Amino acid sequence: MNFSDELKTLKKQVQSEEELNVDLSGVDKIIISGMGGSGIVGNIFSEIYDRKPVTVVSDYHIPSFADGKTLFIAISYSGNTEETISSLEIAREKGCRVVAITSGGKIGATVDNKVLIPGGIQPRSALGYMLMPLLNTFLKPSSQERDAATAMIDAIDEDNSDMESLAREIWSGKLIPIILGFSPFKWVAYRWKTQFNENSKILAFSNYFPELNHNETMPYRGTYRKDEFKFIVIGHPENMRIEERIKWTSSLTSTPFHRVDVRGKYVLDTLFGLIHKGDYLTYHLAKLLNVDPTDVSLIEELKKKLSR
Amino acid sequence: MNFSDELKTLKKQVQSEEELNVDLSGVDKIIISGMGGSGIVGNIFSEIYDRKPVTVVSDYHIPSFADGKTLFIAISYSGNTEETISSLEIAREKGCRVVAITSGGKIGATVDNKVLIPGGIQPRSALGYMLMPLLNTFLKPSSQERDAATAMIDAIDEDNSDMESLAREIWSGKLIPIILGFSPFKWVAYRWKTQFNENSKILAFSNYFPELNHNETMPYRGTYRKDEFKFIVIGHPENMRIEERIKWTSSLTSTPFHRVDVRGKYVLDTLFGLIHKGDYLTYHLAKLLNVDPTDVSLIEELKKKLSR
Repeated sequence: MNFSDELKTLKKQVQSEEELNVDLSGVDKIIISGMGGSGIVGNIFSEIYDRKPVTVVSDYHIPSFADGKTLFIAISYSGNTEETISSLEIAREKGCRVVAITSGGKIGATVDNKVLIPGGIQPRSALGYMLMPLLNTFLKPSSQERDAATAMIDAIDEDNSDMESLAREIWSGKLIPIILGFSPFKWVAYRWKTQFNENSKILAFSNYFPELNHNETMPYRGTYRKDEFKFIVIGHPENMRIEERIKWTSSLTSTPFHRVDVRGKYVLDTLFGLIHKGDYLTYHLAKLLNVDPTDVSLIEELKKKLSR
Repeated sequence: MNFSDELKTLKKQVQSEEELNVDLSGVDKIIISGMGGSGIVGNIFSEIYDRKPVTVVSDYHIPSFADGKTLFIAISYSGNTEETISSLEIAREKGCRVVAITSGGKIGATVDNKVLIPGGIQPRSALGYMLMPLLNTFLKPSSQERDAATAMIDAIDEDNSDMESLAREIWSGKLIPIILGFSPFKWVAYRWKTQFNENSKILAFSNYFPELNHNETMPYRGTYRKDEFKFIVIGHPENMRIEERIKWTSSLTSTPFHRVDVRGKYVLDTLFGLIHKGDYLTYHLAKLLNVDPTDVSLIEELKKKLSR
């Protein structure tokens, strides 16, 4: 499957009705462990689910508070991520209730209680497969919400020329994107950053309102190299306090912000609309730069060196 | 007080024996709310204290799980931060146990249970005043640890020529720093980023091992503009798995990493040593760039526009 075909699987992914098979009685906190394209799933989830404390771990270890009342969710698309395997072992020792979302690998082989998702695509293209079981278990989206998400994704699959234009602008200026998000889609800004890194192979960074107004804003007036960056603000513009911040940050620093707004009816369609715009933006940029968006051979080489 | 004098107060700050006056029985989770130079205190704390779930909020709202068994800690140096005041009001409505660390302001005036810290310096220069009450309450550092931290800070106050050289290199190449950290000092890398932003007024970014190996690493081989960045790895080099990652990331991407190692005896002296090196680096860079490290007038202008 080429990368463009992978992107077109997302609209089906959000129709997944898979759930974690867990008894939540007595569970008072959740730890989600995952790295890269799998780890972001936990971060995005933690921003829209807040009825219990959710700690997202992207490292070898887990916090010492993990115990028998902790639900530990290992997310690894390949099932072979060394950090996630390490954290899973610690979670078992500490007596956590352990579940996994994976396409197989060692984690698929050793965790009984799991959601097995389809393999064969890039982990970062399987975000829907990995995220939906969390949403289905804890937030139970309706079929209307699911259908709205599919319709939103479908519309972006059909026409993403706005993202092609933006990619062309970044490409022609050899610009470094800074993606600025805000609640409840701060982590989608980080998702865009990582898609620029992996698909387009360029440096990119992310931050969010209102936190960035307390530090990162200072150099937006420009000490040096500011013009080499492209500032992109993404989100659903409905919070007037945040809109004021965006307006004044841009005007007081004379920094043009390129806005990418997605106005869904629900959180779900807005979320996946924002995600999918970033998928196409970074895909178009890869084509302009003549790099293969699926190529992550460096990460594979690194894993090989480390596994010796 | 000029900025250099502010930096020299840190060695006294770590001797603070202030504690939060709270009954921790029945508290099963902690929310720390703060922005910018105050918010980072919660992040740094959350990485070295992990016996209860700690959620750090840098926004207007707090998670819906907040309840009577939640300790809510508002940290605002000025005591007038609008986001922190908003989150504090929600915490009160939800019946959280509320405490504050502040030098005064509205938060100082309305929260009975608080640690009042000395005012009059930049919030980012008061990190020790704000962090020590958390450490004293939850981790109880010994006087040996405290003295080791003071000695570490004192040595850096005496000789920070290594940071002056590094500042000169960044200045002469007009480089954008990317600071890479690793556990348990990931958030110190973010602190350095914000110090570059506020003190030196330049763009800067941070990330951490092992997460960055799953995405950000890809462009380290260089698609464009890579040579305009300065990669700085900070931490206490003792974790061999992480050291392998650092070595192979650098070698497979042909990216020189400038290492800033601090080898304290304890977490406390290492932590403050790493923090203080970043303080001086960004201070020296400000001097070379001929910008005032204390000037954050833009952030003040923004607050004024928003408060109308």
